[in-house]
Amino acid sequence: MKAYKEMSREELLALKEELAHQYEDVKAKGLKLDMSRGKPAASQLDMEMDFLDALNSASDVKTEAGVDCRNYGLLDGIPEAKKLMADMLGVTADQVIVCGNASLNIMYDTIARSMIFGVLGSTPWCKLDQVKFLCPVPGYDRHFAITEQFGIEMINIPMTQQGPDMDLVEKYVNSDPAVKGIWCVPKYSNPQGYTYSDETVRRFAALKPAAEDFRIFWDNAYVIHDLYEDKSDALLEILGECEKAGNPDMVYEFCSTSKVTFAGSGISAVASSKANLDFFKKTMTIQTIGYDKLNQLRHVRYFKNIDGMKEHMKKHAAIMRPKFEAVLAVLERELGGLSIGSWTKPNGGYFISFESMEGCAKAIVERCKEAGVVLTGAGATYPYKKDPADSNIRIAPTFPSEQELALATDLFVLCVKLVSVEKLLAQ
Amino acid sequence: MKAYKEMSREELLALKEELAHQYEDVKAKGLKLDMSRGKPAASQLDMEMDFLDALNSASDVKTEAGVDCRNYGLLDGIPEAKKLMADMLGVTADQVIVCGNASLNIMYDTIARSMIFGVLGSTPWCKLDQVKFLCPVPGYDRHFAITEQFGIEMINIPMTQQGPDMDLVEKYVNSDPAVKGIWCVPKYSNPQGYTYSDETVRRFAALKPAAEDFRIFWDNAYVIHDLYEDKSDALLEILGECEKAGNPDMVYEFCSTSKVTFAGSGISAVASSKANLDFFKKTMTIQTIGYDKLNQLRHVRYFKNIDGMKEHMKKHAAIMRPKFEAVLAVLERELGGLSIGSWTKPNGGYFISFESMEGCAKAIVERCKEAGVVLTGAGATYPYKKDPADSNIRIAPTFPSEQELALATDLFVLCVKLVSVEKLLAQ
Repeated sequence: MKAYKEMSREELLALKEELAHQYEDVKAKGLKLDMSRGKPAASQLDMEMDFLDALNSASDVKTEAGVDCRNYGLLDGIPEAKKLMADMLGVTADQVIVCGNASLNIMYDTIARSMIFGVLGSTPWCKLDQVKFLCPVPGYDRHFAITEQFGIEMINIPMTQQGPDMDLVEKYVNSDPAVKGIWCVPKYSNPQGYTYSDETVRRFAALKPAAEDFRIFWDNAYVIHDLYEDKSDALLEILGECEKAGNPDMVYEFCSTSKVTFAGSGISAVASSKANLDFFKKTMTIQTIGYDKLNQLRHVRYFKNIDGMKEHMKKHAAIMRPKFEAVLAVLERELGGLSIGSWTKPNGGYFISFESMEGCAKAIVERCKEAGVVLTGAGATYPYKKDPADSNIRIAPTFPSEQELALATDLFVLCVKLVSVEKLLAQ
Repeated sequence: MKAYKEMSREELLALKEELAHQYEDVKAKGLKLDMSRGKPAASQLDMEMDFLDALNSASDVKTEAGVDCRNYGLLDGIPEAKKLMADMLGVTADQVIVCGNASLNIMYDTIARSMIFGVLGSTPWCKLDQVKFLCPVPGYDRHFAITEQFGIEMINIPMTQQGPDMDLVEKYVNSDPAVKGIWCVPKYSNPQGYTYSDETVRRFAALKPAAEDFRIFWDNAYVIHDLYEDKSDALLEILGECEKAGNPDMVYEFCSTSKVTFAGSGISAVASSKANLDFFKKTMTIQTIGYDKLNQLRHVRYFKNIDGMKEHMKKHAAIMRPKFEAVLAVLERELGGLSIGSWTKPNGGYFISFESMEGCAKAIVERCKEAGVVLTGAGATYPYKKDPADSNIRIAPTFPSEQELALATDLFVLCVKLVSVEKLLAQ
């Protein structure tokens, strides 16, 4: 393959014409596909329908300690569910509160709580002139949407394969008392699928924040979401590292079973120090009498324990892996050597991150949409939806069927080529 | 029976000695009973165990419109659940958002949202020097706990059998722009079991608030929770009344199935005007991807429709009614004519409200506790836990078995007598 940049103007013009023809042909097919969100496929959900049988009218609905899960009580979750979610994160049950159906909701509430009530006795953030959050980029759009809604100023921190640029993180956190938090997806990061290195985690744990109420929002969304049995990433457990480093209260860790059982009908958890959890519970006990304990029990009965949950994740991986591999194969075959894009090859998570030539991402996504394939909006992986280089595109291969995915990926690489040629011609 | 107030000092002293003996006898039994919260009894929950079969591995898990309830999507609830909850409230599905497992959580979030983002464009309440709420008393402790936590000043409004004292409500709402809300349990009020009269509802709808962001928090927790088939209270539908009165945005109405299916594992809903719901959704869409749609579907499949739900409520009533009647019979038999207390005789809901002689409620609750029966803390039915007359006690007859309830009620009336005698002797 010849890199596009090395082509003559004539070669590019000829190529453009050819690609434009191909594009019109695909457009004529009238595709209607969605690769925009990290949603499990129907086949993944079909595979686990027996989850719905885990509790039925013949079930014992009491916890081991005898609490009736059909009635009010147990604000912080049933002990068995605390154990299960703790094992997922590699922490202990007393470091965990099990909540409702979405960890996003816990994160939102945690920010809201900090705005109104402060953090462990600090000034409520809404009373401050300035509150800033560090945002590793590219990152998760729903994180950025929360901080944006609360008027929190977001600062881009470039991601590396080892995690966020820690020199920058340390510079901001250790010097600016307005910096109150950082959003992290430490394992199989959204969208790149990078896992923070041990050194990165240790540098996080060793931060010396200028703000006493600085917190790391550690969204461990893909903690057990490996694609391969023989090459899964390992992430250092951060609560323990922070404690060792003398920063026991610096992290809030989040996780859920949204992509373990049913999306939107899972259970979620937050893990942190006793001081933080006690503070959480002071507001939680006013906000709710308790979360859905029957759904907690349903999870416990279905998986039995963390080993059962991990076995279950292998079934998800078996369905997802071929999709990731198919997309990667097409990218390599069609774009390899052209120097018009690069992409990540994650060992887990829900996304592949694509970097186009500068200034091309929006146009590529637009072209795909015109031909019937919806991708995550270009820019969505950056705060304020502003990708300064206009180059990042998040690919979510899981939701479409394998056949749909093949069609969508073919269209995607075609659009990458077409937009890249147009860009080069315009230069 | 001779009223205690008409007894001579000698008679009272003799009575006191006799009652004190009886009390010591009961104390020796070592009771351990809980009448503190409005919780359904195990027998009610046993009755509806087949609810857990309503969805199983063989179920169709799509909505009628074809949405897969196992995956993300539908922020405001599945259409069928919106219809069911709307029918519960007597409104239309488009006036409803179906949320998670607890209406308390919606109410809390609604206050939090108003604090941070204001109401339909008004100044966020946290930016104001003063925010006040009207609190009909006696009322629901968890309502008061929310407004207390947010530092909202609470003003007592006495309840009557027709609802809150509307002269006072109109005086405050129509003149003071700092009054931003009022807590209402309009049907089978907590704890008295009163239902607001049509006139009360119409006067609510016709309020002319000094504050544009004044809202009625209409917690219709017991909307279909009748105890008797032949004498259920009727409540005028307030959304329609407010619209007629030119105040379409003035009400947020809340309900849930916490005491219809399983407490803590139900679904909840908020009903309001389109403008209010659109405003809600602007923050909700950042807070969550969606609520638990499988549990919404489970409810729809179990009940089929509102008729099925109402039939189901008759089964709850059949279990609860004898308990209410047993308590009322003991109160009448033991305290009737003594002029040391009065009580309500509700047609629905979860509570009986007891008024002791002034200054006796705390002591009665304390005595009960000492002998092993936990009641709702005296004062809990008032903002800041301060019952100015120290006279209101909330009786929750549902949770104990009939046998336990008999023991607890006997103790209760004994304590009322004993404390009343002591009070009279101390005067």
